[in-house]
Amino acid sequence: MERVYNFSAGPSMMPLEILETAQKEMLNYSGTGSSIMEMSHRSKPFQAVVDNAEATLRRIMEIPDDYTVLFLQGGASTQFSMVPMNLAQRGQTTAYAVTGVFGKKAWEEAGRWGNAVAVINGKDNEFTAIPKLDADSLPRDAAYLHITGNNTVYGTTWNTLPQTELPLVADWSSAILGKVIDVRKHALIYAGAQKNMGPAGLTIVIIKKELLDRQLDNVVPTMLRYNIHAEKGSMYNTPPCYSIYMAGLMFDWVNRQGGVAALEARNAERAGRLYAALEECKLFHPLAAEKDRSIMNVTFKLDTEEMTADFLKMAQNRGMISLKGYRTVGGCRASIYNGMPNEGVQLLIDTVHDFEMGKRD
Amino acid sequence: MERVYNFSAGPSMMPLEILETAQKEMLNYSGTGSSIMEMSHRSKPFQAVVDNAEATLRRIMEIPDDYTVLFLQGGASTQFSMVPMNLAQRGQTTAYAVTGVFGKKAWEEAGRWGNAVAVINGKDNEFTAIPKLDADSLPRDAAYLHITGNNTVYGTTWNTLPQTELPLVADWSSAILGKVIDVRKHALIYAGAQKNMGPAGLTIVIIKKELLDRQLDNVVPTMLRYNIHAEKGSMYNTPPCYSIYMAGLMFDWVNRQGGVAALEARNAERAGRLYAALEECKLFHPLAAEKDRSIMNVTFKLDTEEMTADFLKMAQNRGMISLKGYRTVGGCRASIYNGMPNEGVQLLIDTVHDFEMGKRD
Repeated sequence: MERVYNFSAGPSMMPLEILETAQKEMLNYSGTGSSIMEMSHRSKPFQAVVDNAEATLRRIMEIPDDYTVLFLQGGASTQFSMVPMNLAQRGQTTAYAVTGVFGKKAWEEAGRWGNAVAVINGKDNEFTAIPKLDADSLPRDAAYLHITGNNTVYGTTWNTLPQTELPLVADWSSAILGKVIDVRKHALIYAGAQKNMGPAGLTIVIIKKELLDRQLDNVVPTMLRYNIHAEKGSMYNTPPCYSIYMAGLMFDWVNRQGGVAALEARNAERAGRLYAALEECKLFHPLAAEKDRSIMNVTFKLDTEEMTADFLKMAQNRGMISLKGYRTVGGCRASIYNGMPNEGVQLLIDTVHDFEMGKRD
Repeated sequence: MERVYNFSAGPSMMPLEILETAQKEMLNYSGTGSSIMEMSHRSKPFQAVVDNAEATLRRIMEIPDDYTVLFLQGGASTQFSMVPMNLAQRGQTTAYAVTGVFGKKAWEEAGRWGNAVAVINGKDNEFTAIPKLDADSLPRDAAYLHITGNNTVYGTTWNTLPQTELPLVADWSSAILGKVIDVRKHALIYAGAQKNMGPAGLTIVIIKKELLDRQLDNVVPTMLRYNIHAEKGSMYNTPPCYSIYMAGLMFDWVNRQGGVAALEARNAERAGRLYAALEECKLFHPLAAEKDRSIMNVTFKLDTEEMTADFLKMAQNRGMISLKGYRTVGGCRASIYNGMPNEGVQLLIDTVHDFEMGKRD
């Protein structure tokens, strides 16, 4: 059987050449006589893997020197707690722009620590657009403003960052490396790896160094302290070694494609063609407001559940899987991250047209 | 270059046949057309991977039905916080048997949450033996007694579990699946995977179900709550999918070897031969008290640092790596987990004898 086109929102497809490299190096990494998985995280060969991964990520994201890069575990969901515990005093006000399922979770989690205020709440438009944020309305004493840069569930994104004097914290899990992110405009960026960067089990945090100096409440667990991980170069305890190795291969791949800007151009062009096809066809209805559409997650509906099921079946028969929409939203979702080949997007577009024309395989 | 014998305390060697299976399935797992790394964690094939891993672990460890098995992230270090936050009220007394570096860390971390009492402290004997624990001296109001079942740094182990009425919580990171552990005698067992179970980035927790019903302090992060992970079958958020898959291969391997008891017999026999060789030779001195010796981590010293360096070099030349002792202890440490072939242990024994006889390669 051939490889399928997997439109999953994450974990998601990886470029074939990366998987082939991992396959080749599985029993013996770079002449060391060990798999990466078997190596002490304190060994020189593994330290070189981490150092190279960080250096390449810094290059492709243009991360300034006054930011620290951390390789952590626990996913974005753990960041929902770490952000307030590290950046806000207990009970302090924090500001959350709630634009989707994960933004809501982040906001609720911050409420365990302090006074988390939802400064916008996208449920008023069913999360199909990013509401306008009035900078003057933000609480001035807030420790930071938190946004979800790209909303996987609804397929919306912040195409322009909000204007604010507050430190900006962003969950860029589903768009990092898929489009250019200006690190300087952020105090902290976090992202789970399993969409654009590699396998699940790794979380990247990019944090302005001056934020590491704060005195934290004693109750904050050691493993949830950014400064501990920063001091130890992400090696306070055993890191998720294999996921870091795979992410490093992905960073090299991004570099070989010409960098993030080149990938963004490719991603925007092919997402644009997919949106155009959906707009053209009467049976398909894109969900997200045009101005806020994501180039990573394209959400759309058909008129009935039956038609949706027929379309998903036709797609599956053509080797395209995981196109079903999020359970609370329904319809379809095509996640077209960096690892999705152009051929996969084209096949989806062709299938949309064929379905519209009444063709069934 | 051939594969080396890697005596690292973790991450550590895996059986070659497991790595070969992973290599073969890298681009296309079981005819799905995807790598395990690319698959949605909500997909049927991945759910089957998790279900099989749990079922096999339950079989080989004889885990009773009134215990829940969790696949988590963050290593044992995260458990150092989760245990008190989930099993003790804020400020409540907890009891810690401090028998090594990681037991000390667990104790200190519990101090962030409550009144963590060190009921024994192995620093009095430089952690080379497990001090006797007087059950009558334990604080009666303690939420639990915590032990580190096997101490990697000093090479000691609890060969007999302490007698206590308190719920017993044990960090079995470095011996799980390497020797039989009676789950029923524990309230909670936790273990990082990267020694006997698979790659880093996965932590196994085995918890008595009745402990999941407690009302937790609001400040406890969602991701640090056992009951959330239990309710969601370890899928509250994206789990470390590939590490779970590899651990599943390892569980199957343990099963094929005849189970944990058969591996314990093999491990005890070959560790016994290594200890005997060290005892026989005048240049080598085992560190751990005989009654408390671990069959997983064998620690020993030579008389001078120069001799230690010579021995490590000779071992390296023969294809044996990561034999250096922990930085605060010095000397040598041979971690001989399940994945270490018998040939590796025999080569080490032969090298000890050759070094003693004055042979140099």
